[in-house]
Amino acid sequence: MHIRLIVPVLDSEALVGKAEMEYRAFAAPGTTVSAVPLRRGTFSIEAEFDSALAAPEVMRLAREAEAEGVDACTIVCFTDPGLFGARELVSIPVIGEGEAALHAAAMLSSRFTVMITEEALFPLIRRVVARYGFSDKLACVKAAGARVLDLDESRLPHVIAQCSEAVERDGAEAVVMGCTGTGFDMASSVETALHERFGVHIPVIDPGKVAVKFAEAFAGAGLRHSKRAFPLPGSARSEYGFA
Amino acid sequence: MHIRLIVPVLDSEALVGKAEMEYRAFAAPGTTVSAVPLRRGTFSIEAEFDSALAAPEVMRLAREAEAEGVDACTIVCFTDPGLFGARELVSIPVIGEGEAALHAAAMLSSRFTVMITEEALFPLIRRVVARYGFSDKLACVKAAGARVLDLDESRLPHVIAQCSEAVERDGAEAVVMGCTGTGFDMASSVETALHERFGVHIPVIDPGKVAVKFAEAFAGAGLRHSKRAFPLPGSARSEYGFA
Amino acid sequence: MHIRLIVPVLDSEALVGKAEMEYRAFAAPGTTVSAVPLRRGTFSIEAEFDSALAAPEVMRLAREAEAEGVDACTIVCFTDPGLFGARELVSIPVIGEGEAALHAAAMLSSRFTVMITEEALFPLIRRVVARYGFSDKLACVKAAGARVLDLDESRLPHVIAQCSEAVERDGAEAVVMGCTGTGFDMASSVETALHERFGVHIPVIDPGKVAVKFAEAFAGAGLRHSKRAFPLPGSARSEYGFA
Amino acid sequence: MHIRLIVPVLDSEALVGKAEMEYRAFAAPGTTVSAVPLRRGTFSIEAEFDSALAAPEVMRLAREAEAEGVDACTIVCFTDPGLFGARELVSIPVIGEGEAALHAAAMLSSRFTVMITEEALFPLIRRVVARYGFSDKLACVKAAGARVLDLDESRLPHVIAQCSEAVERDGAEAVVMGCTGTGFDMASSVETALHERFGVHIPVIDPGKVAVKFAEAFAGAGLRHSKRAFPLPGSARSEYGFA
Amino acid sequence: MHIRLIVPVLDSEALVGKAEMEYRAFAAPGTTVSAVPLRRGTFSIEAEFDSALAAPEVMRLAREAEAEGVDACTIVCFTDPGLFGARELVSIPVIGEGEAALHAAAMLSSRFTVMITEEALFPLIRRVVARYGFSDKLACVKAAGARVLDLDESRLPHVIAQCSEAVERDGAEAVVMGCTGTGFDMASSVETALHERFGVHIPVIDPGKVAVKFAEAFAGAGLRHSKRAFPLPGSARSEYGFA
Amino acid sequence: MHIRLIVPVLDSEALVGKAEMEYRAFAAPGTTVSAVPLRRGTFSIEAEFDSALAAPEVMRLAREAEAEGVDACTIVCFTDPGLFGARELVSIPVIGEGEAALHAAAMLSSRFTVMITEEALFPLIRRVVARYGFSDKLACVKAAGARVLDLDESRLPHVIAQCSEAVERDGAEAVVMGCTGTGFDMASSVETALHERFGVHIPVIDPGKVAVKFAEAFAGAGLRHSKRAFPLPGSARSEYGFA
Repeated sequence: MHIRLIVPVLDSEALVGKAEMEYRAFAAPGTTVSAVPLRRGTFSIEAEFDSALAAPEVMRLAREAEAEGVDACTIVCFTDPGLFGARELVSIPVIGEGEAALHAAAMLSSRFTVMITEEALFPLIRRVVARYGFSDKLACVKAAGARVLDLDESRLPHVIAQCSEAVERDGAEAVVMGCTGTGFDMASSVETALHERFGVHIPVIDPGKVAVKFAEAFAGAGLRHSKRAFPLPGSARSEYGFA
Repeated sequence: MHIRLIVPVLDSEALVGKAEMEYRAFAAPGTTVSAVPLRRGTFSIEAEFDSALAAPEVMRLAREAEAEGVDACTIVCFTDPGLFGARELVSIPVIGEGEAALHAAAMLSSRFTVMITEEALFPLIRRVVARYGFSDKLACVKAAGARVLDLDESRLPHVIAQCSEAVERDGAEAVVMGCTGTGFDMASSVETALHERFGVHIPVIDPGKVAVKFAEAFAGAGLRHSKRAFPLPGSARSEYGFA
Repeated sequence: MHIRLIVPVLDSEALVGKAEMEYRAFAAPGTTVSAVPLRRGTFSIEAEFDSALAAPEVMRLAREAEAEGVDACTIVCFTDPGLFGARELVSIPVIGEGEAALHAAAMLSSRFTVMITEEALFPLIRRVVARYGFSDKLACVKAAGARVLDLDESRLPHVIAQCSEAVERDGAEAVVMGCTGTGFDMASSVETALHERFGVHIPVIDPGKVAVKFAEAFAGAGLRHSKRAFPLPGSARSEYGFA
Repeated sequence: MHIRLIVPVLDSEALVGKAEMEYRAFAAPGTTVSAVPLRRGTFSIEAEFDSALAAPEVMRLAREAEAEGVDACTIVCFTDPGLFGARELVSIPVIGEGEAALHAAAMLSSRFTVMITEEALFPLIRRVVARYGFSDKLACVKAAGARVLDLDESRLPHVIAQCSEAVERDGAEAVVMGCTGTGFDMASSVETALHERFGVHIPVIDPGKVAVKFAEAFAGAGLRHSKRAFPLPGSARSEYGFA
Repeated sequence: MHIRLIVPVLDSEALVGKAEMEYRAFAAPGTTVSAVPLRRGTFSIEAEFDSALAAPEVMRLAREAEAEGVDACTIVCFTDPGLFGARELVSIPVIGEGEAALHAAAMLSSRFTVMITEEALFPLIRRVVARYGFSDKLACVKAAGARVLDLDESRLPHVIAQCSEAVERDGAEAVVMGCTGTGFDMASSVETALHERFGVHIPVIDPGKVAVKFAEAFAGAGLRHSKRAFPLPGSARSEYGFA
Repeated sequence: MHIRLIVPVLDSEALVGKAEMEYRAFAAPGTTVSAVPLRRGTFSIEAEFDSALAAPEVMRLAREAEAEGVDACTIVCFTDPGLFGARELVSIPVIGEGEAALHAAAMLSSRFTVMITEEALFPLIRRVVARYGFSDKLACVKAAGARVLDLDESRLPHVIAQCSEAVERDGAEAVVMGCTGTGFDMASSVETALHERFGVHIPVIDPGKVAVKFAEAFAGAGLRHSKRAFPLPGSARSEYGFA
């Protein structure tokens, strides 16, 4: 099985290469993982603007992936840029990290927090959660207090403190790491710290991991998006040469 | 007051000119109305794909309008492409026709139908209605049975029949013409026909008209979008030369 | 265009005259604004009881306004006394300040606070917000800590502090001044103070202003309430001499 | 225990006397039932207008009942005119027939229909259902096809047919007789007819009956409305001589 | 009238006898109250596990009660173990304390807190509240800080402090004592304390009391559950000898 | 990886063996699948009663599976008997077929139907859908018109007709086969038939397949349920010898 990661930011080789390697670590045996960046877009997605700029390229890359025989795509960003448009263009499963992570959180708990980079993104994150119908299960949104590209291990103690507060004060039973990219190692560090603090397992969900596992699950089960929900656009047919 | 209509489709001169003229007809005295098309996009918006392709240009045009001293923008499409991203970039009001029409329908009735071109667009329309929180007030979606560019007066009897059914069977108390563009004259023809049939006034809402009147209302009252909801993106600041 | 303000409290000449003058200040050129008080009711509306006592007179005054050829009415109170009944009686638009302000807040932000006079009114305000379907967007309710008729500039610092808390702690992105009447100047003072504090524009919505601008918008666009939603009551026909 | 029925329509002696007698039939032993009509209002409640006209008198009569030592009041109309205002004025339980019937329906089934007089009242009924938070459980609204005062046994076959359709087509599991007044005997006739047709018990809920039994339950258990939810209005204190 | 209390825990004679006596205290004259414990289950219900273990016995006891000619059953636990299954088996009303208490709270206030034994039960309680559709009215959940069987008068000051906080900080207008069993006397002590503190009546709802009064109300009014909502299971017919 | 299927019905060897074999067909290479039936329960689950009877055994079997070193369990029934209680007892993922299938449907479409055996189960199915928060996405419920154990290929044309109606009339974009057990082959036959009829892919979701793939995904990603959401019950600790 071949899964294509669409990394919806400008190529910054280290990032895309790092992502590919990290994602491979938890793919099933027999799963090939390849990652592609955008040619036009921004260096990180921290606004509706960034997400909207990324969408056209994401859709094109999904179409390209299908043409190459890839089995499923994931979009490597919690805001899921271009997700619905990409599904219209292709027949293979396209998994958004935001959508996948929220569904996983709803299955593993009944109330969760989303951890994000900065407070300025709270409205954007609340809109993502609302789009997928999970506002009722959102205990709170919490911020790491750093921009995406500055989010390194030095923020870990602050992130753990924020997550602990979400559990204690707001009744969160699980954590979704909304700040993907450098979030890989952080998720497990936070999970360990919460276990120490609360004495029980509190899942800390890495959207990228969930998206890849759901891509494997859907592709493995022959499950694909409904083309009544996401019909092939007439414009794609006539103007872009899509069949 | 100067209102800029962002027509989120490729330039087809007749269309943009026609739109400008029609919109002027119901603008207040003292309101200037100008319309601009996209340079990149599709000839109509009938899919998530089309809407996502239009968004980057819509955002750019909103920023351009603000720089020119325009008082408010409307986005001339029921799917509101690029609406939230445009609001992040500018401080003047940006009104989406879909959002405006749905709020108007909710104020004029407690349950309404949305009339759209083709059945294939029902899922897309339901997602637009859900995005703004109006699913509970949606009696049903109805289709004219023609693509946007083929939607002319010959479809009127069918549209009236569909609207009548929405009123009688599904309890719709108002109609939103989700198929904008050539919908201008149609709205008032349908309204007249429904009045004849049911003996009372049933509003048929033209999203373009509502958007322009709301743009006048917001600009006239000094009301602008919250920059806590739609903060200026960091990427816009550094990379696009926006202040 | 002639807009009638129905002030749903007992005549206290200063108040009605002051309201008329203030509302005129932001009406469009060409808009006539006239205000009428109740002959039976209370001196302020601070309870369901007060609102219910006002309703019969509000409905009568709406009917009277229509008979005089007025183009639209607004009801000058956040609780919208008699709104739905008035709509049943007349064919001109009747705009409630509460309904209008909440729709405006939902278009300008995705989450807002309502500022009201006293904590004792919180349940009443929450019921108004729920009635129009906006509970999901209500960050919190806040109180000025004074009764309507005692709400003067001396409370401004407290109001600003409460609004700041709503923004910081509860994630409010906009403020609705639920305490209308003397709220006119307060809205803009609070808006300025919030801008200073948070460095960005946070709209502070004056329901009276929004209602007048929406009245102009609806009347200007020929939009009237659905008579399927608000049919003429049989009792009004036979007993009150309404046609 | 003494329960006061507030009949929110003009005195038409037969009606009030008939109501009193019918309600007594299902009161518990030891429960006294007395009914009072309005002095100002309409002959039936078939609109928001009628309901709003009735409210001031309903509130006054609730206050009067409490002063006379009555243990609980019910408001004899599905639209619950003046319910919340009455609760503000008094400390004894005030039960609305609409609210009580909908709660009972939600406890006896998970999805129900409301049977009402005429289709023109559907929007009003849907607003009542939404006000109490039961829109999700409303399978449909159905109409008897006659005005309140014309609703006699001749409509029974039509009512039964409508209810059967609600069960079969819309999945209703229970029926609420929204048209109270002459609905007393009808409820049990419809219940019998549905049992014959579907072979199982389908409850047909008479709001008047439920309201009286809930009044007995609340008064018997010492349960009264929260005065944080329904605080005594300042205006009632100073102007109406209420303590 | 004969009401059977199904106490869904293992027989611990003192408890069942005490419950029977306490419940009798507020039953109407003429109501017989009898209580039965489980033969298999746990000593208290503090988890989904405990509730699921209790359900088979609860269903059997409901069927037994009906066979004995009992008029209505209540299930003496806030989590309502076996409620829906019991309703399928019998035709007499089966009232769950959780469901009944939440409906009562929604009729007596518009926003309430649920007081429970320990914080670990918050997710379980939130699921109960969601099951009946009352999440929107839940101000918060609060904990007494003791296990069910350790919950005695010594916790009263803590319980009162928690309830006061729910009123002041979270806007609760009423309290539901989710920890039934020994909650009987506590409810009225807390109610008195809250009245002293806030100067007005704030209802503190004892689920057991409400369930018995609703059982009397439903049985007295001839109201029974819909057998379309809760049809007799085929398995019960053939395998358990139920008719 | 070892996945245990808990088949929550009485042992009827053919069924459990058949299930095991069918489930193996779509498990990933390296996944071991074993199935166990109940020792006490019913022969099929077609009621709340059946589901509640099955729960204690399901919980015990989940605990047993964990003790044997199994990596994840699925509960082979759309009503998910004992799901939450089982999660309290163990630390390995427990996947309910109902919950999993509804999440999958929500990710593959925005509106779906659930196909079930008989109309009598509609209320039960609607409650399952509501429990997981998907009522808004439920287009309708449809029935095969046969009991679980009689559901064979002869019903296929009827099932296809019902699904087609759900798509055409109710706007379903996907189908969830709520009647598991013999549903395996049916799902793909229905999918093929719908593709032929509508010309596009409409997913027909087999809950058993999805549950196994989600079990693989969760176990493969190290994702386990939150023990704040599902804490180990005190009773399990002391009375059942669970650690």
